[in-house]
Amino acid sequence: MDKDPGSSSLRQLSDIQTPALLLDLAKLDANSARLRKHLEAVAPDVLHRPHLKTAKSIEVAEHVLQGEEPAITVSTLREAEIFARAGFRDILYAVGITPSKLARVAALRAQGADLKIITDNLETAEKIAVFAAETGTNLPVLIEIDCDGHRSGLQPSRPDAIVAVARVLSDGAQLAGVMTHAGGSYDAGNEDEVFAAASGEVAAIVRSAQILREAGFAVPIVSMGSTPTALSVRDLSGITEIRAGVYMFFDLVMAGLGICHSRDIALSVLTTVIGHQREKGWIIVDAGWMAMSRDRGTADQQIDQGYGLVCYPDGQPVGDLIMESANQEHGILAVRPGSTRSLPDIPVGSLLRILPNHACSTAAQHDQYIVLDKAGRVMAQWPRFSGW
Amino acid sequence: MDKDPGSSSLRQLSDIQTPALLLDLAKLDANSARLRKHLEAVAPDVLHRPHLKTAKSIEVAEHVLQGEEPAITVSTLREAEIFARAGFRDILYAVGITPSKLARVAALRAQGADLKIITDNLETAEKIAVFAAETGTNLPVLIEIDCDGHRSGLQPSRPDAIVAVARVLSDGAQLAGVMTHAGGSYDAGNEDEVFAAASGEVAAIVRSAQILREAGFAVPIVSMGSTPTALSVRDLSGITEIRAGVYMFFDLVMAGLGICHSRDIALSVLTTVIGHQREKGWIIVDAGWMAMSRDRGTADQQIDQGYGLVCYPDGQPVGDLIMESANQEHGILAVRPGSTRSLPDIPVGSLLRILPNHACSTAAQHDQYIVLDKAGRVMAQWPRFSGW
Repeated sequence: MDKDPGSSSLRQLSDIQTPALLLDLAKLDANSARLRKHLEAVAPDVLHRPHLKTAKSIEVAEHVLQGEEPAITVSTLREAEIFARAGFRDILYAVGITPSKLARVAALRAQGADLKIITDNLETAEKIAVFAAETGTNLPVLIEIDCDGHRSGLQPSRPDAIVAVARVLSDGAQLAGVMTHAGGSYDAGNEDEVFAAASGEVAAIVRSAQILREAGFAVPIVSMGSTPTALSVRDLSGITEIRAGVYMFFDLVMAGLGICHSRDIALSVLTTVIGHQREKGWIIVDAGWMAMSRDRGTADQQIDQGYGLVCYPDGQPVGDLIMESANQEHGILAVRPGSTRSLPDIPVGSLLRILPNHACSTAAQHDQYIVLDKAGRVMAQWPRFSGW
Repeated sequence: MDKDPGSSSLRQLSDIQTPALLLDLAKLDANSARLRKHLEAVAPDVLHRPHLKTAKSIEVAEHVLQGEEPAITVSTLREAEIFARAGFRDILYAVGITPSKLARVAALRAQGADLKIITDNLETAEKIAVFAAETGTNLPVLIEIDCDGHRSGLQPSRPDAIVAVARVLSDGAQLAGVMTHAGGSYDAGNEDEVFAAASGEVAAIVRSAQILREAGFAVPIVSMGSTPTALSVRDLSGITEIRAGVYMFFDLVMAGLGICHSRDIALSVLTTVIGHQREKGWIIVDAGWMAMSRDRGTADQQIDQGYGLVCYPDGQPVGDLIMESANQEHGILAVRPGSTRSLPDIPVGSLLRILPNHACSTAAQHDQYIVLDKAGRVMAQWPRFSGW
């Protein structure tokens, strides 16, 4: 990934070619400190294993994790490979493995990474065990548990199925523990529902560990986590590690859940006004869905933020202005339906910042972060990677 | 962008790490030939200026344009820079320019590219004219016309505004013509509505050219186009060039409009089954929204395809199976609501191909095409680029 050759001359937002992804370092630091303090208070002995699927940047990872034991979670083997090359050793690949990926896993382990994988079914467990035995690979595997019917995982209400997978894995590979993810917490209506999701997540994974222990297996890792539940949970008895990812950036979906305020969001897309359709109440900018992503995560929340909430260059929201719709490279800004405000006069050429619905999907549209210091000055450009 | 060092050993789909973007070359060729033949039949003298915002690949562009006069359309200056470096000279940047981008435009023109820009407002036109005069840049500019209230552009019903922009531009820059885009055609309900959109688009842009000619301006370029209208239009009198982009790939949105059949779609995402939730009727795969994008373009069409239509590895659809929902790296496949079919038995480890709602947004999630020949063998890996 090329860095802009003129990067050293960038000092202020007006030097940036739009659209561009901005990262407010003071907010990143404050958000990271918030989760760290919360976990120190409620569970000082629980390992935090941040999920780096949103960051996808060595610089962000090193910045956020300074001082912490660098155990990490990833969502792709490419993330595992890049972070391992950067010196991260303890890595959980938290998407169900396929046998066709085992050779890459073994190669990373042979290079010294303690890469752990997951599965939730007998067929894959058998292939993992055979692969581990045949290649002589020490292959730690976590069994994926379903705590809320959201996607993958075995249900704790079916203990036999969990024990069966553990038996098959143990015959060749290494049963390293159990893990779950309360994805349903993103659909919660309020903080009480998030708290309920967190309690359900803890109960499901602790119960699963117990099932395996009662069947005679050691279960060193009991892993749970999502940003909403990590920040909400108060009793982590029986949990050994917690995974959260979006917490370091936050986004409008998290603000809609009441987990953060929109002023906490560390990511935004810098854009330039390219025209108006004044009779329609539209301001048109050069950031469309290619810069914001097609994510409409707030569409079903109480406040629909369109494709994002519009702020002035200093980060202050422009009243009720949202990106109402988006083409590939055009964003259409309008006052939120139902608002009594009128369209502000923002001339062609003006810079604006758009807060994203979903940090993961918006960041994925960009190949670098433009990093801002506390004074809003451009202090660095950090590359992002993508792919699998 | 790195090519996979092992690329020469890839020969079949089972060698590919999933998820991955597949490009069926026979379909790309057939789709390209279809538009070429249509335009040769209805308007042999009209220039086709393909939009490369979907392709974002030099190899795809060279493959599709072989034999044609290589005039192209782009949606970002990065596209312009990369295609200019690859030898494309006649380039239209079809998003309203901002003054902060004029230096990059001038640099490309100084390097020999005949890059044209667009605007729809007086303020920008003034800055373009001043920039062109001060820097001695010959800067051809098209005035953007609004033919359907979809986004940017001046209305032909306001001739004074169009003439005013032309006057300002001419005093420093070069008025090169007028252009429009019937973005509303993507929301058409059927082929008749697409045809109506095409007729309206022709009428609006021809009328705008006439307004300027009556005011004494030369209007060498009269440019229109979108894939639906380009394939539907029959009378192009007064039009000098037509722009289409998605036509070379097609997608489920185009199939839903009746513009193509789902078997014409040249792009698909290869994925592997990683698990099941059989009680729920779910198959879980390793392609989520990161591989498909968050685009739900068929949600408001007659047939909602979820995040994509599921096919076997040979490209044949699996009955009514769609990607019903998606997490970042998980896709949940289920039988389409209302279908009488039952969930097929597709074991863990199986490969599947998912046809995308929207070629532009799905392709944007990938950094390369895995190119398949007529026999379905992997014949090449072509890099894609991104960014602005």
